[in-house]
Amino acid sequence: MALIVHKYGGTSMGSTERIRNVAKRVAKWARAGHRMVVVPSAMSGETNRLLGLAKELLPDAHDPAAQRELDMIASTGEQVSVGLLALALQAEGQPAVSYAGWQVPVKTNSAYTKARIESIDDARINADLDAGRVVIITGFQGIDSLGHITTLGRGGSDTSAVAVAAAIKADECLIYTDVDGVYTTDPRVVPEARRLQTISFEEMLEMASLGSKVLQIRSVEFAGKYRVPLRVLSSFTPWDIDLAEEAKSGTLITFEEDEKMEKAVVSGIAFNRDEAKVTILGVPDKPGIAYQILGAVAEANIDVDVIIQNVSHDGRTDFSFTVPRADYKRVMELLETKVQPELGASKVMGDAKICKVSIVGIGMKSHVGVAAKMFRALSEDGINIQMISTSEIKTSVVIDEKYMELAVRALHRAFDLDAPSA
Amino acid sequence: MALIVHKYGGTSMGSTERIRNVAKRVAKWARAGHRMVVVPSAMSGETNRLLGLAKELLPDAHDPAAQRELDMIASTGEQVSVGLLALALQAEGQPAVSYAGWQVPVKTNSAYTKARIESIDDARINADLDAGRVVIITGFQGIDSLGHITTLGRGGSDTSAVAVAAAIKADECLIYTDVDGVYTTDPRVVPEARRLQTISFEEMLEMASLGSKVLQIRSVEFAGKYRVPLRVLSSFTPWDIDLAEEAKSGTLITFEEDEKMEKAVVSGIAFNRDEAKVTILGVPDKPGIAYQILGAVAEANIDVDVIIQNVSHDGRTDFSFTVPRADYKRVMELLETKVQPELGASKVMGDAKICKVSIVGIGMKSHVGVAAKMFRALSEDGINIQMISTSEIKTSVVIDEKYMELAVRALHRAFDLDAPSA
Repeated sequence: MALIVHKYGGTSMGSTERIRNVAKRVAKWARAGHRMVVVPSAMSGETNRLLGLAKELLPDAHDPAAQRELDMIASTGEQVSVGLLALALQAEGQPAVSYAGWQVPVKTNSAYTKARIESIDDARINADLDAGRVVIITGFQGIDSLGHITTLGRGGSDTSAVAVAAAIKADECLIYTDVDGVYTTDPRVVPEARRLQTISFEEMLEMASLGSKVLQIRSVEFAGKYRVPLRVLSSFTPWDIDLAEEAKSGTLITFEEDEKMEKAVVSGIAFNRDEAKVTILGVPDKPGIAYQILGAVAEANIDVDVIIQNVSHDGRTDFSFTVPRADYKRVMELLETKVQPELGASKVMGDAKICKVSIVGIGMKSHVGVAAKMFRALSEDGINIQMISTSEIKTSVVIDEKYMELAVRALHRAFDLDAPSA
Repeated sequence: MALIVHKYGGTSMGSTERIRNVAKRVAKWARAGHRMVVVPSAMSGETNRLLGLAKELLPDAHDPAAQRELDMIASTGEQVSVGLLALALQAEGQPAVSYAGWQVPVKTNSAYTKARIESIDDARINADLDAGRVVIITGFQGIDSLGHITTLGRGGSDTSAVAVAAAIKADECLIYTDVDGVYTTDPRVVPEARRLQTISFEEMLEMASLGSKVLQIRSVEFAGKYRVPLRVLSSFTPWDIDLAEEAKSGTLITFEEDEKMEKAVVSGIAFNRDEAKVTILGVPDKPGIAYQILGAVAEANIDVDVIIQNVSHDGRTDFSFTVPRADYKRVMELLETKVQPELGASKVMGDAKICKVSIVGIGMKSHVGVAAKMFRALSEDGINIQMISTSEIKTSVVIDEKYMELAVRALHRAFDLDAPSA
């Protein structure tokens, strides 16, 4: 008998028929004696429909007063979902009660449309669990200190589920999704990609931040901060699958390194082509130069990822970094019209056709030569490395976009990820 | 410069284009210097859509736990409306903020799906009005003492608007609707029917309770209790109609009898064919007999309207009453299988093909012979009266359904309602 949080995405909640299946699955867990909390998303398409109506009336809803109204509108999608799921559970003979974020309450800051959770009160949830009810809580939303409804931004329901699990000290938070777990890499690129039975929290964090779309990165951060055991599993298995089998399916994101079952040094290969590279050449090499360049970029609200500063020659250096591809034109213009003349740099160059490929593995901490092995594998396939960035458990390279699939396959093979799990 | 509440129905809020027109109308009032509060309904069709989804999952949502979820679901329709209207006002350059019932808060009892308003806090509303904002509040809903969302039942948005107007002591509450005011009777039955410029609160209450569908009866009761001047007017006039003209259009429901402009003894003719008549014959005439009959009916949750007990003959009497036509079969079965044998009554009879026609007028208080004039007008057209019920300001008769239009036209003429307003 455990305290369990289930999270279901919009596809799982996409019709009354699907909601009925979610209810049957949750009721199965409750009948087995577990204390159940469920965090569903809005029915698929609903959030887009609501925000579409809003956009028709005010296309530029940028100021806080308008964004507050967007949250007022968008938050209703999940409120309908929780009510419907409660009714479906009651129809199964399972007592259930639904709460909107403000009723729990889930307290957030006032950053409308992208708020952050500050605290969750567990009193009401526990009282209902004690009374034998399944408790259903809206994902994606909360209430700020002024009593206004807030939303967490797209994908925020994962974060809500993990935050609720942390608040009530759940034994496990199960994220039901349209993939059946976390893979060594994207199976669409490498058919030999394998599902991982476990992955460490740190590896998952790197995978998420490097472009693996399985979980929203903020939910992984939350899980890490509060040490919530998180499981990603398929919502497509039949609801009446044996519970013991379901409970150990998917991928468990764990905090207990010694229990790690897979011995590989590298756990997975992540990649994305959402970035562009810019280089500013011939910058005078003096203190504060990085701030002068990146400060201007940050002021323009553009995220910077990989940053490289070359060794200097004759008092001048080159400075390269990557930005989201959507901001490429803006950052080039900023560098050419403002930063280059101010610093007296010689030239600005850019390349939008790059990709970033990363190897991730907690085993890298204690193994030398991992990066070297990566570079050798790439060179053997004639792939030129443009930038390198490393952390304790990942090594990323920026390469020409056209080599992306080739690089991912080469690395998947080089690190023995093609082989069946040990 | 006045404090004004506007209420818009689902048709007025039925599309983003229509919401934009509502915003333009409200902005016009705000620009003229009025402090504006708006109570809109859900977009037309939305409440039905939401409750339809709920019904698919739990067809019999009768217990409080299920009804609580229905309110959770249905209340989102108005929440979307208020957010969209706020955005539309902001797009017009008019600062605006929306609130769900729980945010105001609008406090109600816990009778889910048919809750009653207990109090409305005006602090938040006044603060926003002081700051120059239009305040938009969800109709139809509130929050109970346990923090659960409640709804007021169908048509509850009228009641919400009047209750808000009472709480903030508004100068006038304008109900924008699909008719352009209150008529002496239904113009579809009597083409000569005239719009009343004013009608007393008591007359409006009788008209509403007798089947005139212009306003929900609870909203009229509320207006009476808190003396809120109420105006029913058309939502179909162009938004840019002259404000002074708009402000005196429609029908004003007033509390100031001496200001009454129309001198007619009878103000209007109401009618409905939603009732059925049942009679139980040969009942022993002893104390408590009415309770024994009507108590059983009340226990079955059936409303009783007109009640007649005949004078008794030989210790036995006949007892007739009307019930909603939808309950006719149920009440007949109840009387035949339970009440008749228990009381030893001789027979049960029923007639579903009846109608009720009423004359309403505050002038009746001080005029004798009004009822007699009504009965003479009906007899001149050969209409037989089956039951009679009177109150201080109305007289109702139950007649054969087939004479309904004939009776309404005869009475409209007999009481000089065809003539243009004095």
